[in-house]
Amino acid sequence: MSDGEFELIARLLERLPPPGPRVRIPSGDDAAVTEHDGPLVISVDALVEGVHFTLPQFPMKAVGRKALAAALSDLAAMGSEPLEAFVVLGVPDGGEGDGLLELADGMAEVAERDGVAVVGGDVTRAPALLMSVTAIGTEAADAPLVARSGAEPGDVIAVTGELGGAACALALLLEPDAQGPSAELRDEILARQLDPRPRLAAGRALAKAGAKAMIDVSDGLAADAGHLAWSSGVRLEIELERLPLAPGVEEIASSTGNARATAAAGGEDYELLVALSPERVTDVAAAVEATGTRLTTIGTAVSGEGVSVRDADGRELDLPGYDHLR
Amino acid sequence: MSDGEFELIARLLERLPPPGPRVRIPSGDDAAVTEHDGPLVISVDALVEGVHFTLPQFPMKAVGRKALAAALSDLAAMGSEPLEAFVVLGVPDGGEGDGLLELADGMAEVAERDGVAVVGGDVTRAPALLMSVTAIGTEAADAPLVARSGAEPGDVIAVTGELGGAACALALLLEPDAQGPSAELRDEILARQLDPRPRLAAGRALAKAGAKAMIDVSDGLAADAGHLAWSSGVRLEIELERLPLAPGVEEIASSTGNARATAAAGGEDYELLVALSPERVTDVAAAVEATGTRLTTIGTAVSGEGVSVRDADGRELDLPGYDHLR
Repeated sequence: MSDGEFELIARLLERLPPPGPRVRIPSGDDAAVTEHDGPLVISVDALVEGVHFTLPQFPMKAVGRKALAAALSDLAAMGSEPLEAFVVLGVPDGGEGDGLLELADGMAEVAERDGVAVVGGDVTRAPALLMSVTAIGTEAADAPLVARSGAEPGDVIAVTGELGGAACALALLLEPDAQGPSAELRDEILARQLDPRPRLAAGRALAKAGAKAMIDVSDGLAADAGHLAWSSGVRLEIELERLPLAPGVEEIASSTGNARATAAAGGEDYELLVALSPERVTDVAAAVEATGTRLTTIGTAVSGEGVSVRDADGRELDLPGYDHLR
Repeated sequence: MSDGEFELIARLLERLPPPGPRVRIPSGDDAAVTEHDGPLVISVDALVEGVHFTLPQFPMKAVGRKALAAALSDLAAMGSEPLEAFVVLGVPDGGEGDGLLELADGMAEVAERDGVAVVGGDVTRAPALLMSVTAIGTEAADAPLVARSGAEPGDVIAVTGELGGAACALALLLEPDAQGPSAELRDEILARQLDPRPRLAAGRALAKAGAKAMIDVSDGLAADAGHLAWSSGVRLEIELERLPLAPGVEEIASSTGNARATAAAGGEDYELLVALSPERVTDVAAAVEATGTRLTTIGTAVSGEGVSVRDADGRELDLPGYDHLR
């Protein structure tokens, strides 16, 4: 670690909320030490410039927010209570300016909102801006952790919130001059990329209410349905018409194709896809609504393997990226 | 995660040792879940192509070994018992070949040797090959964790093993045709870069025997002494003549400069620098020797701040990278 890195880390740490009472030895030693008792839920997630975001389309603050939010979304998908995060920051030559402080501010915003302590990290040179976030959580009281593997034939498949918003936000970011929605709606859509909200409260509510299998929608609904189907050893049959569309998706996606296909294939919505016993659906939906979002039934689990997404006429959608999952 | 990533991860996981009984939900879900009770020791460490290693000078197996070993070295410096590791692997376009399997083999070698389970990870595209490793450990029985901050004036400063080997190994790797040592000695020297050994057993022995402050020598002895001095609020006075030289350092470094200056400034030796009460030195040295390495007294802690490294004539060495620490 060079002198500059030492100072940079000190400047970045100033922007972040102070570590909580769990933290015995915070950032600045060889390793951080926290007190812990019970299951440990751990996820690692990387965000790389040119792969997961582009500059300058993404403000640095949004990069910081998104890196932490994406890592927390994995904890949400387990129904876990988040505790701490550790961050590796890779910085290209000449990238040590105030942009990094904005990035830290974005990360701090998410850390404070979701009650997470950023306890340790590493700053290194890298050929592009990158962040690798390790998120650590535990099992919440009365909310047993939910894996991807518990779905059974006969289960109802449901999804939180709305889909397709992040894909449309990306289209707006990359083509800012394209014919688009009103300024107000535009900001709401862009937030799906620039300020994604991990469904932590909904995830815990789902775990508590008896979700059998759960995954976050990061690769796209169809692809993530495929992961859940594979892990559970079932086939998921999803009805395209039932997919809940994010505001603006109808308007933006209709110019390039089918809005519901965008909702089925687009990634990074960070909603939760869940398998439930049919008799639990009403109670579970109420529990999710109490956290400020909705739960929509979109299909069923049956014997077999893979995923089908069918339109109202029963035609199977040919979605990129999920062919291998059928 | 694309289809290719999915398969790649499956192929990589096959190379790694199976997760142990602590692991409730292994890799392949949104997050891994392990059982844990007690202090949690966590370190993150990144290895980036062109920054921390170069290709093809470093075989892929060595890259895998070094990434995990460097992360475990941070746990060694706390006196911690390692448990699990999580790996983010960034792969450039076209880099998905068998080299990645060799990298996994190298990582598996270290994981098996040091009893660590690689429990989860993330594979992503990146502009250069990179690995970000999160190492998780706990407090060993009878060996209280040791921070950097406990040194006091009057303490003896000591270091495990030998120094300067990794700097000489790097020189040999980058200039393989340069006048060098015998083939046998050459392999021994190169191992300091290609197969570094984190001092986990020595770290626990030091913690158990009453080490007051500890840090691993990754940035170079002088720089890391500066970090320990800063954290503890003391000044470290180090005697250049006492630095233990790795085999071959005298021979290789004498052509370019002073061998002991190489030992003081070179990085990545992954030895442990430690502060001890004077009356404990004999016992502590015996405890370290029982783990298969030696402990050498190299200086003392005094009131003040910063670090001085003086030769036999009392002249202070002007070492690159530690000026700011004086």
